[in-house]
Amino acid sequence: MTGRLNSTSDSSAGGAHKDGAKNCNVALIGFGTVGSSVAKILCERANTHLRLTHVLNRNVARKKVDWLPSSVQWTENIDDVLSSDVDVVVEVMGGLQPTEDWIRRALAAGKSVVTANKQLIARCGPELTGLARRMNQQIQFGASVAGGVPVISGLHEGLAGDELFKIQGILNGTCNYILSQIEANGVPFATALREAQKLGFAEADPTEDIDGLDARAKLAILARVGLHCNVRPESIVARSISAIDSVDFEYANQLGCTIRQISWAELRGDELFAAVQPALVELSSPLSRVEGSRNLVMATGTYGGETVFGGHGAGGHPTAVAVVSDILAIARSRQTGTSYAGQPPEKNPTVTSDYTAKHYLRFLVKDRPGIIASLSTILAHCGINIDAVVQKPGCPKSHLPFLITLEECKASLVEQALQQIDKLDFLVHPCLHLPII
Amino acid sequence: MTGRLNSTSDSSAGGAHKDGAKNCNVALIGFGTVGSSVAKILCERANTHLRLTHVLNRNVARKKVDWLPSSVQWTENIDDVLSSDVDVVVEVMGGLQPTEDWIRRALAAGKSVVTANKQLIARCGPELTGLARRMNQQIQFGASVAGGVPVISGLHEGLAGDELFKIQGILNGTCNYILSQIEANGVPFATALREAQKLGFAEADPTEDIDGLDARAKLAILARVGLHCNVRPESIVARSISAIDSVDFEYANQLGCTIRQISWAELRGDELFAAVQPALVELSSPLSRVEGSRNLVMATGTYGGETVFGGHGAGGHPTAVAVVSDILAIARSRQTGTSYAGQPPEKNPTVTSDYTAKHYLRFLVKDRPGIIASLSTILAHCGINIDAVVQKPGCPKSHLPFLITLEECKASLVEQALQQIDKLDFLVHPCLHLPII
Repeated sequence: MTGRLNSTSDSSAGGAHKDGAKNCNVALIGFGTVGSSVAKILCERANTHLRLTHVLNRNVARKKVDWLPSSVQWTENIDDVLSSDVDVVVEVMGGLQPTEDWIRRALAAGKSVVTANKQLIARCGPELTGLARRMNQQIQFGASVAGGVPVISGLHEGLAGDELFKIQGILNGTCNYILSQIEANGVPFATALREAQKLGFAEADPTEDIDGLDARAKLAILARVGLHCNVRPESIVARSISAIDSVDFEYANQLGCTIRQISWAELRGDELFAAVQPALVELSSPLSRVEGSRNLVMATGTYGGETVFGGHGAGGHPTAVAVVSDILAIARSRQTGTSYAGQPPEKNPTVTSDYTAKHYLRFLVKDRPGIIASLSTILAHCGINIDAVVQKPGCPKSHLPFLITLEECKASLVEQALQQIDKLDFLVHPCLHLPII
Repeated sequence: MTGRLNSTSDSSAGGAHKDGAKNCNVALIGFGTVGSSVAKILCERANTHLRLTHVLNRNVARKKVDWLPSSVQWTENIDDVLSSDVDVVVEVMGGLQPTEDWIRRALAAGKSVVTANKQLIARCGPELTGLARRMNQQIQFGASVAGGVPVISGLHEGLAGDELFKIQGILNGTCNYILSQIEANGVPFATALREAQKLGFAEADPTEDIDGLDARAKLAILARVGLHCNVRPESIVARSISAIDSVDFEYANQLGCTIRQISWAELRGDELFAAVQPALVELSSPLSRVEGSRNLVMATGTYGGETVFGGHGAGGHPTAVAVVSDILAIARSRQTGTSYAGQPPEKNPTVTSDYTAKHYLRFLVKDRPGIIASLSTILAHCGINIDAVVQKPGCPKSHLPFLITLEECKASLVEQALQQIDKLDFLVHPCLHLPII
């Protein structure tokens, strides 16, 4: 970069580049769904000064398409890219290695980087940003969270004037799709998952999504950008949605709620509460109305209150929009050091998963007299107040689901009570425990 | 500015400012609700490099507060600000004059400007941006639309990679509050307006809000930033919400809709459709769920589909967040010419208010035989298909409200039919005509 980039809009400023705007040369590492969408946008959009010069992928012969200009160089060798006059390297191939090495080498070679790689940025974002800054380059990662929803720039730029303390979001489209299906069709979890896999909404191995590992990488990035907290993804508790049954939606609905996988980070003094877990969400909340595979992030600040960002969280084209927006931001800035992660996280809080909320406890029991008495005695001993007891009519006595809601208290207190409760012999399953947001 | 500004986060980059970050000096023009909120945020937030140096207001003696540092200079004279070493002039006093002159003089004096003034930016944004660019300065106006909702930066930066073609939004909290009240309490428009005035949600003279003039200034700005269209606010049709009655909400609900004041701009080839008007909105749309005085903007792009930005559209603190975010953006960039309006609008489309949609026609008639026959004959002659006829039971024959919905067609066609219909002698009022979005 170093002065070579010059966006059209800036050509009249500064005086040094009056001879007209120069192109910004872009290399694409990875030509899968997102990569080919990025290439499409770069080719189709008129009047931009971005020029795709390289595409790197394994087995180029098989990948090569005829709709890209013949000037584009196809290669399988990263050195072709690194030794070229490329300004911005766009990494959309995913994975941790060799991706990390290549990104380091690109920065070291004086190129800026745009990446959609959430796991990599969640793990070593600050380090890579530091390297970029030392090299007078930028690394941008707007596409790493919530695809086309511009939440990274929204937190970093649009809400920079606020003091954000809470972020709640639906960051995993697969979980949202599966939970929506259980809700709409009353099917068991396993059926909804199979259906999602058949339709391409879930991977063959869905663990990353279902168990919240995908979402917690994104939450770690949002906590860094929005709350200025340095959080390792492994320190964020992730609970699976696989325990959710269609009966839970019936009970949730009776409580004026639905159930969603919620990514939640909240700063309280020196402590950061952070967790990804299924939760009951009131129907009045924007979080309850996220349909299918969409994403939504709600940021709460001291001054501005709640601000919502929503849209398509995945898919080639929406993710590519985020990537191209990042390339444009780099081209526009003609300078370095303004990367989103450019500000070193200011806080290193203790990370906890102990939230305070109302609680939903769903039991599956072999019915007999005295069950409520046993449960309520244990809860009372722990100092927990029961809010309501609800039982759906017409269920078999041998597999009787019923619900206890608790008044607001710490989750750790409830877990303590559940350690005793889960030993009771009338339980068919361990109790399902969800927060009510 | 010219190199004097240096944000903390950037201090390690570039090398020229290793001696540490310099302050960015800020002058506040106007110390009303928003102005004092901006001052509060600047004072309360730690670790920022923004320093409030001047406050300008009429009658300073009465305005002066004790919670600002004594270093702040209070003045009634703009020359005190213009001759000082202030870097950024923040204009939150509103009005067109002397505001415009003062902003021009500030830019000419080598200061960047942040303004929340929608009417001014809607009228002469491109001109002021041009002046800023010639002076190597910036003018930012993120607070001019939707208060604390970061939609200007979202459209300009976050969605820069997309090709947006449609913007629909709820941009006026007063109208949204009044319509919500008519809906919730079944009160007439005049009652809801009086209530809103009593609670401070509506001005003593509510014309700007009710008749859509406030929203169309905002829509002109969004069309410029998001659709790159040069639109004068006067060329946008604005229709009042004052004709909406509680019976319209009853009918709307029967159709699975609610009624909101919708600001809508949509690019179709060389034509820009743009209007601010009350419209029926399906309950499944995010636009239908905007509560009270909140704002929401939905942007639709060729690649990324629908993206939603929502939050507090007014109020001192949320608007101040947008203002401070703009100051931070200027301080961060340490360069000029990257203002949001920095790109000259690329398109100068013909502006039309002729939308294509389904239509809602609500009549108030003196009942007698043959009414439906008369209406349907006129509609048929105009080539318009009726979708449904709905009549609420139990209404007086002398003031009978009923509803006709039409299949999708051009609004101009419906207006043509209404010119004939409104002459019919059984009508108590002219027909209320709304689009169904």
